[in-house]
Amino acid sequence: MALAAVMTAPNYPVELQQLPDPVLEKGGIILETIYSEVCGTDVHLLRGHLGGVPYPIIPGHFSVGRVVDVGGNVIDIDGQPVQTGSIVTFLDVNETCNNCWYCLVAKTSTRCPQRKVYGVTYSSNEGLFGGWSEQIYLKPGVKVVTLPEGVTPKRFIAGGCALPTAIHAVDRAQIQIGDIVAVQGSGPVGLSLAILALLSGAGRVIVIDKYQNRLAVAKSFGVDDTIAIDDREPQQHVERVLELTNGRGADVTIEATGVPIAVKEGIAMTRDGGRYVVVGHYTNTGEILLNPHLEINLKHIDIRGTWGIDFSHFYRMLQLLKGNRQQEIAWERTISRFYRLDEINQALADVERGLVLKAAIQPNPA
Amino acid sequence: MALAAVMTAPNYPVELQQLPDPVLEKGGIILETIYSEVCGTDVHLLRGHLGGVPYPIIPGHFSVGRVVDVGGNVIDIDGQPVQTGSIVTFLDVNETCNNCWYCLVAKTSTRCPQRKVYGVTYSSNEGLFGGWSEQIYLKPGVKVVTLPEGVTPKRFIAGGCALPTAIHAVDRAQIQIGDIVAVQGSGPVGLSLAILALLSGAGRVIVIDKYQNRLAVAKSFGVDDTIAIDDREPQQHVERVLELTNGRGADVTIEATGVPIAVKEGIAMTRDGGRYVVVGHYTNTGEILLNPHLEINLKHIDIRGTWGIDFSHFYRMLQLLKGNRQQEIAWERTISRFYRLDEINQALADVERGLVLKAAIQPNPA
Amino acid sequence: MALAAVMTAPNYPVELQQLPDPVLEKGGIILETIYSEVCGTDVHLLRGHLGGVPYPIIPGHFSVGRVVDVGGNVIDIDGQPVQTGSIVTFLDVNETCNNCWYCLVAKTSTRCPQRKVYGVTYSSNEGLFGGWSEQIYLKPGVKVVTLPEGVTPKRFIAGGCALPTAIHAVDRAQIQIGDIVAVQGSGPVGLSLAILALLSGAGRVIVIDKYQNRLAVAKSFGVDDTIAIDDREPQQHVERVLELTNGRGADVTIEATGVPIAVKEGIAMTRDGGRYVVVGHYTNTGEILLNPHLEINLKHIDIRGTWGIDFSHFYRMLQLLKGNRQQEIAWERTISRFYRLDEINQALADVERGLVLKAAIQPNPA
Amino acid sequence: MALAAVMTAPNYPVELQQLPDPVLEKGGIILETIYSEVCGTDVHLLRGHLGGVPYPIIPGHFSVGRVVDVGGNVIDIDGQPVQTGSIVTFLDVNETCNNCWYCLVAKTSTRCPQRKVYGVTYSSNEGLFGGWSEQIYLKPGVKVVTLPEGVTPKRFIAGGCALPTAIHAVDRAQIQIGDIVAVQGSGPVGLSLAILALLSGAGRVIVIDKYQNRLAVAKSFGVDDTIAIDDREPQQHVERVLELTNGRGADVTIEATGVPIAVKEGIAMTRDGGRYVVVGHYTNTGEILLNPHLEINLKHIDIRGTWGIDFSHFYRMLQLLKGNRQQEIAWERTISRFYRLDEINQALADVERGLVLKAAIQPNPA
Repeated sequence: MALAAVMTAPNYPVELQQLPDPVLEKGGIILETIYSEVCGTDVHLLRGHLGGVPYPIIPGHFSVGRVVDVGGNVIDIDGQPVQTGSIVTFLDVNETCNNCWYCLVAKTSTRCPQRKVYGVTYSSNEGLFGGWSEQIYLKPGVKVVTLPEGVTPKRFIAGGCALPTAIHAVDRAQIQIGDIVAVQGSGPVGLSLAILALLSGAGRVIVIDKYQNRLAVAKSFGVDDTIAIDDREPQQHVERVLELTNGRGADVTIEATGVPIAVKEGIAMTRDGGRYVVVGHYTNTGEILLNPHLEINLKHIDIRGTWGIDFSHFYRMLQLLKGNRQQEIAWERTISRFYRLDEINQALADVERGLVLKAAIQPNPA
Repeated sequence: MALAAVMTAPNYPVELQQLPDPVLEKGGIILETIYSEVCGTDVHLLRGHLGGVPYPIIPGHFSVGRVVDVGGNVIDIDGQPVQTGSIVTFLDVNETCNNCWYCLVAKTSTRCPQRKVYGVTYSSNEGLFGGWSEQIYLKPGVKVVTLPEGVTPKRFIAGGCALPTAIHAVDRAQIQIGDIVAVQGSGPVGLSLAILALLSGAGRVIVIDKYQNRLAVAKSFGVDDTIAIDDREPQQHVERVLELTNGRGADVTIEATGVPIAVKEGIAMTRDGGRYVVVGHYTNTGEILLNPHLEINLKHIDIRGTWGIDFSHFYRMLQLLKGNRQQEIAWERTISRFYRLDEINQALADVERGLVLKAAIQPNPA
Repeated sequence: MALAAVMTAPNYPVELQQLPDPVLEKGGIILETIYSEVCGTDVHLLRGHLGGVPYPIIPGHFSVGRVVDVGGNVIDIDGQPVQTGSIVTFLDVNETCNNCWYCLVAKTSTRCPQRKVYGVTYSSNEGLFGGWSEQIYLKPGVKVVTLPEGVTPKRFIAGGCALPTAIHAVDRAQIQIGDIVAVQGSGPVGLSLAILALLSGAGRVIVIDKYQNRLAVAKSFGVDDTIAIDDREPQQHVERVLELTNGRGADVTIEATGVPIAVKEGIAMTRDGGRYVVVGHYTNTGEILLNPHLEINLKHIDIRGTWGIDFSHFYRMLQLLKGNRQQEIAWERTISRFYRLDEINQALADVERGLVLKAAIQPNPA
Repeated sequence: MALAAVMTAPNYPVELQQLPDPVLEKGGIILETIYSEVCGTDVHLLRGHLGGVPYPIIPGHFSVGRVVDVGGNVIDIDGQPVQTGSIVTFLDVNETCNNCWYCLVAKTSTRCPQRKVYGVTYSSNEGLFGGWSEQIYLKPGVKVVTLPEGVTPKRFIAGGCALPTAIHAVDRAQIQIGDIVAVQGSGPVGLSLAILALLSGAGRVIVIDKYQNRLAVAKSFGVDDTIAIDDREPQQHVERVLELTNGRGADVTIEATGVPIAVKEGIAMTRDGGRYVVVGHYTNTGEILLNPHLEINLKHIDIRGTWGIDFSHFYRMLQLLKGNRQQEIAWERTISRFYRLDEINQALADVERGLVLKAAIQPNPA
């Protein structure tokens, strides 16, 4: 039996349950969970904000574990055999069909209707398909990456699901050496974006948030300017970005707030002919007023939505984390606390209240 | 002396005036005007919708003429000498500085603050800087293109300023062979876009407008589907596009209406991961409500504003018009009527009321 | 039993054999072949130029057929059920794994090591996996496209495998409206490229070949200039392209010859800062001398290799063929002759000798 | 009078000459030189390798100085007035015409035939148009950048002309977060490329050179792997890159050697579907044999030449140098030695023999 944290229904406390061990199929892999993230999506799951979730579920979509058993010859993405004892991770998005119009023609696989997600769209009745559990079962076909030398499980989970999400957004942003980049929001995704902007050779990185403590973290990672939003002066932070950019606005602005009005402000703080990437709106939080003449056409702007991640973002996350010089980035510092499995409701509460920047579950304490 | 049509102030009838002949400078060129366009921008000038216009002006920003005199050795863009008797045209946008941050660093020259525009931002007190005149004076530095063989002045003026504008928008749209392209609006720009989409190898081109007669013209150029907007059923045309596209939406949608709500509809008729180009909003006509989650982030869409044209769009317009097979496109048919200089107020009225698709002035009748 | 043309070994005449009917699996499809192409690749197969071919094989990688039987509920790429009697086609490239580093990370699926190809890399001992047969068996997972209205089997096979190959190359070439495009070679791929360049809004399309009859076909499709290579004056055709382009060279040049020296010439006929696409070198025909300073660095050129096709090119081929205005392109004219199954050796000989532009087998004569 | 180092003819020692003070025109600027670079191009000038050089010349194309006098109101690129005492720099490339087909249509301004270059294509008879001089005269129209806070003259000259050249090449390379980047050559451009690759979020940066001391410098800046070329085993370094990349090759390889065979090796060490940028071949050093099938078409590779720099690369260099976190890059360490004006022949000799990594002249010692 494996102990797992089960979310039985929205707004109920998460329960610990003993669930049956997985039955290993050919091509399947059983992991002993080392860490699994607790992130904003889990709060949305708890609050019932996402549609189509087959409660009861075992949350935990971003995880790393040690291989306990393998169903025959299975190779990782680099062609190496997956072996008992190896430390591996896997993309939570599974069953992308590679066979539909979105996958094959539009090459927009993050919109594939067949996608399923570990920790989100599998029921706990089906098996151990989430990371808040002593064990995780990887179905045949779930592709794994072996953690490369230099990437500890702690470093990996500190990157968390925010990091590949930010990599996708930065791909869309096409930052050039020397660009001025503004990042709206300094939560896990925003902070990752700010660090990636620095790592993309931006000449100046500006981070905007309403929480001073989050801005302080961003500052500690080397961003050039932080701007606190003052609710009494709602235009002040936009004006401050313009001041810092010769009145022109940032070359690239990336939104990671989930607040509708941030999109209007983000366009205002972007230069004519610049790029504006929207990645923070994973749930519906309302509408804004936009003027197509002033805010799109005359501005000659590119506005780019960014949905989900695919395997390339996930793989490149690991490559980034292992680089010699990139080791200088102390991603580990972004994890505020590790929780035991029986502290899961506390972890969710801390994330919901913003008391922690990033949180992780450690189901099998050392 | 040269006879010119002068717009003395907004909302006053245009007057014919005898103005002094230009004084030829070194590098300058004097043209005898063959045709000059009357377009929607001229109606905006008449109604005072544009800021910073130094009335009195000679309108006519898109023109073609015969060289009457040249100030020394002047070469055209292809390096050939400009000679008396040659038929040439020129980009209305002049004095782009090539020396500011927008020109040199951002490479967004259509946002250069120094730009001036023939027929729009020069006063008639300064000289013959508009096409509604027997003569046009090209200042030193105004670069000309000699009309290539196969491009008559009529064919050129039929393309009009709508054609390079549409080329710029199609550059931004990145149409691929076989794409489904929806065009919103079937005025001069929309019609040009529809034809260019066909010429870009689109598999299906859908044109949406409220005027049946305009749609009939689009149809006659070979577009696959036309959809009339029914004001009583405001969602019907969006639904029709979805029906025609397997429920997914067009790969590319291009807006050429100037109507704010069209932007919301255009996003709705574009597929996830598609491209949406806004080129019709040259004046401020109001705001729309947009939902950043549903209409940007989840849709993984690219929204691209397109402001102005540069010399490359203008030059490529002429290359397009001269191509052997491209000759099959009867651009000439888009000109509804040629007017004499003394019919200019009639021409403006006809354009304003939508009685003509494209109109041109012929200041020196054959 | 099904009659099939089997290539037993390189350089032996193709034999007609009666082979067992396919056993229909769940998800499989049995087709009655309408047409199957005979192309240059088949001559390479006959001559043993390709490695890893499991002779005996049934050639015919590009085919169209009528559905005879379906293994349960199978949907086509557009989500419609595949039904008995429907006319469908399929991408010859099969078993792209969608699970390896090339597919998932590099997104270069045409270099996936798992790819297999109907008509090339399946043995006739395994089943009816080639089009020179009365029937074709589509394994579970082979994705089909239903021929859209307006695309007859004849029109489709006339496009042939050259058309999606050309679409891929044109994607790589990024032709802009008004560009000058030079195409080297006027065989099936070169002719398709020339037509697609016209359909991409090129201002001028120049085709170069050594065969006057092929150039005449290109001319009949509307290309602007054809240039015959004169072996006694090997630089003359390059100089002619420069003459036609103001001494600058084409904006885009695409190679479809398979002749090494053409690559050196192609670079010479491309303008500084232009794009040069190599798509004709599917087999190893030797080396050329290149000067990195003069021909790459100083020229500021982009040279782009183009290997294989994926489902998007294939799907968009069908969209292109069905377009209203695109119907004006008489692709059907490119098929020189249809052969019966028992004329297959004649067909191969005709293709090898260049007596036909495109050839197709009709295994089940009407 | 101003003391200047004049190269009177190829292969003659550089002479110190007293030259007349510049006559300040409206829009012109007189600088007191702080530093001017001595780079490989200057050795080429000394050896007469470059065509069209109007000896006698004052070399020194990359310089920084203090404003001594300004001809009226002149603004820098950011719109700020240029003032006496300000420390400014300027792009050596001047007189790009912004008026020809290359500038306006092809947007390939680094191939503009009108370009002139300070320190290279002006004669010392014309004026103080090179940096190896106590004073430099900036003609009207030469656009300057004021050194931003945080960028000392020493930091700027340490970046040198290699840095914007490398920025242009990195723009062409389109490095994505996590990519593996191989850099061929570890001279000034190669080292800049390696650092920029790290700053672009590369997961692994591999540098190849034949000089161990240069590789040691690269290593000290944080590159992941350095590989020394062993002339007795010419394939060994290519094989080593393949070993480090799972047998696939680098995602991006950038050439900065000027050695023809490096181009063949560079292609071999790049993965299928990867990008190969050639930036090191500024002079003609011979040819290589290439196989279009194996090395271009089958590899599905992009090969991209990169010629010269424009103002955007130069401007972004300064933005990069000033960034908070980017300050961690000790560009200053790349300057091996500062020379007095009367040591110029020694400086050239040291650069030619590879005794220094970067060298600079300080014409007005503090």
